[in-house]
Amino acid sequence: MAYDFYMPARVVGGEGVVIAQSAMFSRFGKKCVVVTGGTGAVKSGALADLEIAFAKENIEYKIYNKIGENPLVTSCREAGLIAAEFGADFLVGIGGGSALDAVKAAAVFAANPDLGAEEVYRMNYENSPLPTIGIGTTSGTGSEISAVSVLTDTKGVKRSIKGDFGYFNLVFADWRYTVSCPMGVTVSTALDAFMHAAEGWLGPKCNEPASAFAAECLPKIYFYLKKFLADGELPDEKGREVLYHASLSAGFTLNYCGTLFPHPVGYILTEHYGIPHGRACAAFFDRLMEKAEKYAPERAQSLITLLGDTKENIVYTLKTLAGCSDIVITEERAAELIKRWSAIPKNFECTPGGYTPQEAAEALVLLSK
Amino acid sequence: MAYDFYMPARVVGGEGVVIAQSAMFSRFGKKCVVVTGGTGAVKSGALADLEIAFAKENIEYKIYNKIGENPLVTSCREAGLIAAEFGADFLVGIGGGSALDAVKAAAVFAANPDLGAEEVYRMNYENSPLPTIGIGTTSGTGSEISAVSVLTDTKGVKRSIKGDFGYFNLVFADWRYTVSCPMGVTVSTALDAFMHAAEGWLGPKCNEPASAFAAECLPKIYFYLKKFLADGELPDEKGREVLYHASLSAGFTLNYCGTLFPHPVGYILTEHYGIPHGRACAAFFDRLMEKAEKYAPERAQSLITLLGDTKENIVYTLKTLAGCSDIVITEERAAELIKRWSAIPKNFECTPGGYTPQEAAEALVLLSK
Repeated sequence: MAYDFYMPARVVGGEGVVIAQSAMFSRFGKKCVVVTGGTGAVKSGALADLEIAFAKENIEYKIYNKIGENPLVTSCREAGLIAAEFGADFLVGIGGGSALDAVKAAAVFAANPDLGAEEVYRMNYENSPLPTIGIGTTSGTGSEISAVSVLTDTKGVKRSIKGDFGYFNLVFADWRYTVSCPMGVTVSTALDAFMHAAEGWLGPKCNEPASAFAAECLPKIYFYLKKFLADGELPDEKGREVLYHASLSAGFTLNYCGTLFPHPVGYILTEHYGIPHGRACAAFFDRLMEKAEKYAPERAQSLITLLGDTKENIVYTLKTLAGCSDIVITEERAAELIKRWSAIPKNFECTPGGYTPQEAAEALVLLSK
Repeated sequence: MAYDFYMPARVVGGEGVVIAQSAMFSRFGKKCVVVTGGTGAVKSGALADLEIAFAKENIEYKIYNKIGENPLVTSCREAGLIAAEFGADFLVGIGGGSALDAVKAAAVFAANPDLGAEEVYRMNYENSPLPTIGIGTTSGTGSEISAVSVLTDTKGVKRSIKGDFGYFNLVFADWRYTVSCPMGVTVSTALDAFMHAAEGWLGPKCNEPASAFAAECLPKIYFYLKKFLADGELPDEKGREVLYHASLSAGFTLNYCGTLFPHPVGYILTEHYGIPHGRACAAFFDRLMEKAEKYAPERAQSLITLLGDTKENIVYTLKTLAGCSDIVITEERAAELIKRWSAIPKNFECTPGGYTPQEAAEALVLLSK
């Protein structure tokens, strides 16, 4: 396996880093558009810190706060056009995966205002995107350090784009912004991070750096997943720090390895049944382990060893927290849902033993069984 | 501990990658100076591959092959001036730590031909260095992915420079180039990689990414160190691949954590007793473990656990392979040697419990006892 590695973003972490390192913003210019989902950026305290930093640096800014969960490509375009009109030098994204993924696309539109909303999926742009700075507020996505952006297209389908344009120029990583995350988001994002590292570990692209990051974060995330299940309480400050850093490590693995079938099949649960992304992916962990045990038994066993628990306990923890067993999908409905794949997605091909839309249909039907 | 991370070089690995990915050279221009130590670049096959790649891409080049072990800052300047005169667009370094460290400085001189040899240590240059591409041929230095360059100054003292200028723009990582390494170099470079990861692990800056890479590579390197000691044979192809990739992982840890006292004290054994760098650092592993057990007992224990052996076996393996027990240094001589430190170096401060030049003198005297 080749020792490939590329993650050019500068990650500057620590408590209070946005204000303490405010001078780093100025390197990118004096006009900025901030892209957020609204509530998270405010509740986390990240936006308040950013406004102090911008005041210190005399940076003029506008806020675009209409990014929703599963961000629409049309919203990204709207944010980008505002930035273009404002003459922004750079963009800052504050939030979880939605806002961070959105700002990457907004930066493309800001530099290419004539680009149609759907044209962003072409991943080939005339002008380089504006510089972007990311400030994370959830412990899940890893979007801070990945080249990926998942956007909902004008037909309501989640589709990802990936390329060098997807890397932030700078990331401020302050775990304190995750403290205000409510229980539901905390669990779902932790499941998302777990699945990034686990899918990477079980997939065919897990080289040394990807393995290193996965092995570092998986036992930590699993410890807190078990704890959520056992006592149903939010993590303490130490737990918040551990989970945020673990989500970044999982993001490194994701960035190199990509994902397996649980991600695209999970999109169906999100789009049609409103299940948050992390839970939607984790709902297929049992099927993934079945595949891995059959077609990549050593990797499956090493994952179990890494987590330090029995396979039964691990599957039970993931499935219970995913909580999708009440979703009843008939065979007919499943056959309809899998029509979204006109070709076999890469994530299916990378799954141990391969994966087919027909298997996805079976997995959807089996959710409630 | 903050989740800081920065390593912007693109690492492209795999067998035959220099020729297969030759188009990547062209992105940097059409004129190049190749900086090497001569023999390694030829014996490894790396230079031959590079010449094929350059022919494919119509890249004009000159070769500067006068970089010796512990590269002189004056040689780096000479290479840089040749590049400036040639009108080179970029530089390629081929070799172990010496050539790779040298090309980083040569790129500075190429862009700043008026800079005096010693002025490179100022780390503040008028013009940005020329782009650099690194091709490694030994499994030790990790210079491929670190911002550090260690150069011997005009007084014969090894001193390091570090900064964003130290990152390669591109690294080709093909383990096959390490196959021609003779036994002595193979062992010394493996010891160097081991010490990078172990010093990082035991030091105060070991955040999650640094830990992840150290934990990934340390057991692998230790396995081969024990094997060298047991059967005295060169590693097979699988071993070469494992060791090369492990040296890169150790380089990530080094890049973030820096080193502890064994590195600067080891420089004395290299400068005055001709001991290769890796062996010179490993010669102080026993003293480092003593310090760690006293002042960072949890980290010392976790290192031992990671290596899966007894402390006695680990120390014995490192010390025996370092092979410096025949170096007799009197107290008077040691007192003279430590005069190189007019101030306490950072590596001393980072050592668990701190470290003093007086302790270094004692460690030098104790080498043969």
